[in-house]
Amino acid sequence: MHIDQLSTAELEQQLAALEARYAELGQLELALDLTRGKPCSEQVALSDGLDGVLAGNYLSGGVDTRNYGGLEGLAEARALFGSVLGLPPEETLVGGNSSLTMMYQVVDFALSEGLRGPQSAWGNSDTVKFLCPSPGYDRHFAICEHLGIDMIPVPMLDSGPDMDAVEALLREDPAIVGIWCVPRFSNPTGCTYSDATVERMAALPRLAGEHFLVMWDNAYAVHTLYDDAPQLASIAEYCRAQGTLDNVFQFGSTSKITHAGAGVAFMGSSPANLAAFCRHLGYQSIGPDKVNQLRHVRFLQDRERLAAHMARHAAIIRPRFESVLQTLEKELAGTGMGSWTSPRGGYFISFDTLPGLAREVVRLAGDIGVKLTPAGATFPYGEDPQDCNIRLAPTFPPAPAVEATVEAFVVCVQLASVRQRLGT
Amino acid sequence: MHIDQLSTAELEQQLAALEARYAELGQLELALDLTRGKPCSEQVALSDGLDGVLAGNYLSGGVDTRNYGGLEGLAEARALFGSVLGLPPEETLVGGNSSLTMMYQVVDFALSEGLRGPQSAWGNSDTVKFLCPSPGYDRHFAICEHLGIDMIPVPMLDSGPDMDAVEALLREDPAIVGIWCVPRFSNPTGCTYSDATVERMAALPRLAGEHFLVMWDNAYAVHTLYDDAPQLASIAEYCRAQGTLDNVFQFGSTSKITHAGAGVAFMGSSPANLAAFCRHLGYQSIGPDKVNQLRHVRFLQDRERLAAHMARHAAIIRPRFESVLQTLEKELAGTGMGSWTSPRGGYFISFDTLPGLAREVVRLAGDIGVKLTPAGATFPYGEDPQDCNIRLAPTFPPAPAVEATVEAFVVCVQLASVRQRLGT
Repeated sequence: MHIDQLSTAELEQQLAALEARYAELGQLELALDLTRGKPCSEQVALSDGLDGVLAGNYLSGGVDTRNYGGLEGLAEARALFGSVLGLPPEETLVGGNSSLTMMYQVVDFALSEGLRGPQSAWGNSDTVKFLCPSPGYDRHFAICEHLGIDMIPVPMLDSGPDMDAVEALLREDPAIVGIWCVPRFSNPTGCTYSDATVERMAALPRLAGEHFLVMWDNAYAVHTLYDDAPQLASIAEYCRAQGTLDNVFQFGSTSKITHAGAGVAFMGSSPANLAAFCRHLGYQSIGPDKVNQLRHVRFLQDRERLAAHMARHAAIIRPRFESVLQTLEKELAGTGMGSWTSPRGGYFISFDTLPGLAREVVRLAGDIGVKLTPAGATFPYGEDPQDCNIRLAPTFPPAPAVEATVEAFVVCVQLASVRQRLGT
Repeated sequence: MHIDQLSTAELEQQLAALEARYAELGQLELALDLTRGKPCSEQVALSDGLDGVLAGNYLSGGVDTRNYGGLEGLAEARALFGSVLGLPPEETLVGGNSSLTMMYQVVDFALSEGLRGPQSAWGNSDTVKFLCPSPGYDRHFAICEHLGIDMIPVPMLDSGPDMDAVEALLREDPAIVGIWCVPRFSNPTGCTYSDATVERMAALPRLAGEHFLVMWDNAYAVHTLYDDAPQLASIAEYCRAQGTLDNVFQFGSTSKITHAGAGVAFMGSSPANLAAFCRHLGYQSIGPDKVNQLRHVRFLQDRERLAAHMARHAAIIRPRFESVLQTLEKELAGTGMGSWTSPRGGYFISFDTLPGLAREVVRLAGDIGVKLTPAGATFPYGEDPQDCNIRLAPTFPPAPAVEATVEAFVVCVQLASVRQRLGT
């Protein structure tokens, strides 16, 4: 029954039952954790064949991967991972183990040194701002905060960032130099940007100016949970039509494909941008770990085998997502106490409580041993203006723990909602 | 015969012979290269056992290396590589594939953000300077130049940097914030810092102030060519006595131990420094490639086996060093046309021509297909005030190519010297 339709007496009756249930849960000494967007052990074990896959052959197209050099990455790896981003090898750079590192380096470089020389450095202006579609990825926001870039939240719709709002902001504020995007299975809402959103995103630099960068973090490019998962349009194709290829950097990694933190990261942009970035990178690196790049190419081989590999991931984590969604549906559907997303891929479910309750739900859960991502973490500066968003990450804990966690979570949501309604 | 003792007629006679010989060499269409401090194929093949060494066991002391986390590196790796630097695990951080990256990050962090908070940032001063013992490592100098840090050359002695000069400079110039060091088998002279130099280095921060950093790039910590190679004193022990542990960062990597560019890098400093650095690093990385760290620990195992492994490297490259030295000795000893070092470890031989001839020798060699490290590369801003230093790197080319290269090199040195003496 919808919370709005409950009488005070009914609410008080529910409150008593929920408090009893919450107290029972408190007795169980739970130690559950739904905070981390990490693959589980069964997932990482899918790639244990990486070790030994080289079988003594460290050569790749005449390159001895065991020696120095090749800042832009191994040709074979640029071809395979470029194809994941929908880019040719010459528009792809394959690096070390972290796409986060690449994103940080690109922002830092554009800010401090300038992609197109010192005149173009964002830091030449007193104020530098980024658009941050929210809820979004906390580590993107942390890069901005650390580097002194002001953040402007933009609402997320089912079709991606609210492009009307994005374009309006760009028209009125020339200090805005970029936007963060997780375009497929967005972190945390799970939405995939619509073709129209991608097309408008590719056109933004024509509105905002040539200094503007779209940071296109395609972290879940191949991370589908279902065969019918929505496809993402190619931003590069729209950019070619608009002449804005210099204004988009795409990123990806194998961290949630093979071994998390032990894979390879890749980025794509125009050859001119990659050349400028490599000149900068050359002061701090002689080259990436090409042996690990070769290992990944030999193990993943091609797009077809990569898709089959990702299907094995999906088979492991899909039941965990479904367990969360079934419990939410069973306990909260129609109650008006919350709404949530049903992603077709990615790593997260985004849950919205009634306004003003996210912190309280996270606190209630924490007090009975259920750790949730801190409320606000998905917003710039950790400030969720509605205090309603909570990110659920069901991949890492074992399936029974996921179920127990969500059952406890639901009790916390109900308890907080009823208390709020009663004003207690 | 010494060039000073030759009559003009004798010099002219030598000149004719040398020009004939040089012309002959020009006919050979040589394509030789002695520029790169890279291990050769036989060396990197010593570590081909890395692939497959995990044998399906990715666990290390309860940590699943296949998943995210652990910015400071794997405990087992911190123990092993800390021991290479003479440091306990808690003073050691193990990272990605490049110690150059770590050095860049430390300098950038100290400059822009401050090791001990924003007040301590070097960049708060208009002028920031580094001492650069020279000849030295060009990539150290490039970091300074790229980050806008002024460089002051300091002479290198057989005992390491001229510490009298270092201390005098520090007394008179408060803008100096650090010094670059390659303390064992210095690049390129091959010298190992004497105990007295190490002790004085550890005491520098007491003279220069708490903002001062010794950048201790121990790149060749275990890279001996001979069993009797000189040992390096522990700077950390001297620092503990002086209370200056916060002022030294040590660095090392396995790039010239296992596979170049595909190994692990490590750094050491006080726990307070490492904690501050990790907070900074956390904005750009979730953690290093722990699988590769585990691979290296399993493969190298302990200090005894590491020493045995390095002895196999030495057996491969020692003949190349000796071939260079024998030819130099045979052709140039007693002629006054040059002097050179006879390193007991490391990757380089440092050669000094008569003043003003390094560029000319490199040009002469280049014209007949013998590529040498550009003259001046071993000095800040590429400016060798005497124009005499040339770095020879004999490890990478096959042994016959090393021999042919040095024979051609000697002809170029003799030709340039005789021409200079004759004023032609």
